[in-house]
Amino acid sequence: MTENQIREIVARVILSLDNSEASIPVEASARHVHLTKEAVEALFGKGTTLTKKRDLSQPGEFLSEQRIKLVTSKGEIANVAVLGPERKAVQVELSMTDCRSLGIKAPINLSGDLNGAGDVYLVSECGCYNAAKSVIVAKNHIHMTPADAEKYGVSDSQSVKVRIETSRPVTFEDVMIRVNPNFSLAMHIDFDEANACCLEKDSKGKIF
Amino acid sequence: MTENQIREIVARVILSLDNSEASIPVEASARHVHLTKEAVEALFGKGTTLTKKRDLSQPGEFLSEQRIKLVTSKGEIANVAVLGPERKAVQVELSMTDCRSLGIKAPINLSGDLNGAGDVYLVSECGCYNAAKSVIVAKNHIHMTPADAEKYGVSDSQSVKVRIETSRPVTFEDVMIRVNPNFSLAMHIDFDEANACCLEKDSKGKIF
Repeated sequence: MTENQIREIVARVILSLDNSEASIPVEASARHVHLTKEAVEALFGKGTTLTKKRDLSQPGEFLSEQRIKLVTSKGEIANVAVLGPERKAVQVELSMTDCRSLGIKAPINLSGDLNGAGDVYLVSECGCYNAAKSVIVAKNHIHMTPADAEKYGVSDSQSVKVRIETSRPVTFEDVMIRVNPNFSLAMHIDFDEANACCLEKDSKGKIF
Repeated sequence: MTENQIREIVARVILSLDNSEASIPVEASARHVHLTKEAVEALFGKGTTLTKKRDLSQPGEFLSEQRIKLVTSKGEIANVAVLGPERKAVQVELSMTDCRSLGIKAPINLSGDLNGAGDVYLVSECGCYNAAKSVIVAKNHIHMTPADAEKYGVSDSQSVKVRIETSRPVTFEDVMIRVNPNFSLAMHIDFDEANACCLEKDSKGKIF
């Protein structure tokens, strides 16, 4: 056997090992708010649109310059990120820790599902917006392209288990696969989940 | 076969199923502080001892009437529980979320291990105590008696995986078994871990 043949075999073995490991970058999503055009105008003034501060990992999504305060009868959280672009429904994504501190009873839903969502007031320098039935704890999920899905042997809406490989490893169940050609490969978990597994910047998850 | 014989067999099967499930009550430990006699006197006055408010699940341990404030240059957390009785070393047990909000770099250690522990000031109405090298994030663990250990087929200092059976199931790895005739069966996790798995009052963990 020639050296080149051996190199080729070794390269194939390494590639197959890499595929079987299925390492996914894991990102912690901080608390944030998605607003409608109507809510943006109510909170930041007639004719205002969200101003991009920086792009997020998913194409088209951005962190805006705008910030708002969440208020309930029990507490408040200031300086909360507003993500753009504007959406068809107001959606407030908090951790369980946030919900407890604000006294909000919110369901664990996939983004976009406001079934049973909780209530909160959004307060800015210009106004107050009643964001009734808008608060969810975002269910963890993995964004990927069809090519990623093929590589990892999974399909859209499939539920998988993921082990987060950190100094305090944790396995999450019922993690939803979301496939779209525009997505960028990333698992999204909230800050409770991130702190429970001591997530670091370069931490990876392994589907199994 | 008589009805009694059948009853006996069914009872044995049910018992074996129950054993194989190895369900452990799971308790979330809120942030708290253990103090030395010296620290109690520095914070609450010469000759003062901790006053019991209520017993905790582990025999001899109690929640005291005393409360203190944790302070760093970055932030503070007020109204923190002080557990009794007094110990040989000051130990401050926080979640990663707490550590981030206070800017403390703390290790994940078993209770009693202050190797690499972080720094914080303890403040009361009477004084301020420099609790250097006292802050840890308590590593999750299971308290049990020798009889429980035999039932679950584990031994002291063994590391096990535990699946928390909630609406958002999570599996924790490297959970330390701690066996002592005085212990009461309970798994202890911190609030980040509790919120990551949406722990409820009657939630159970399963060793595997």
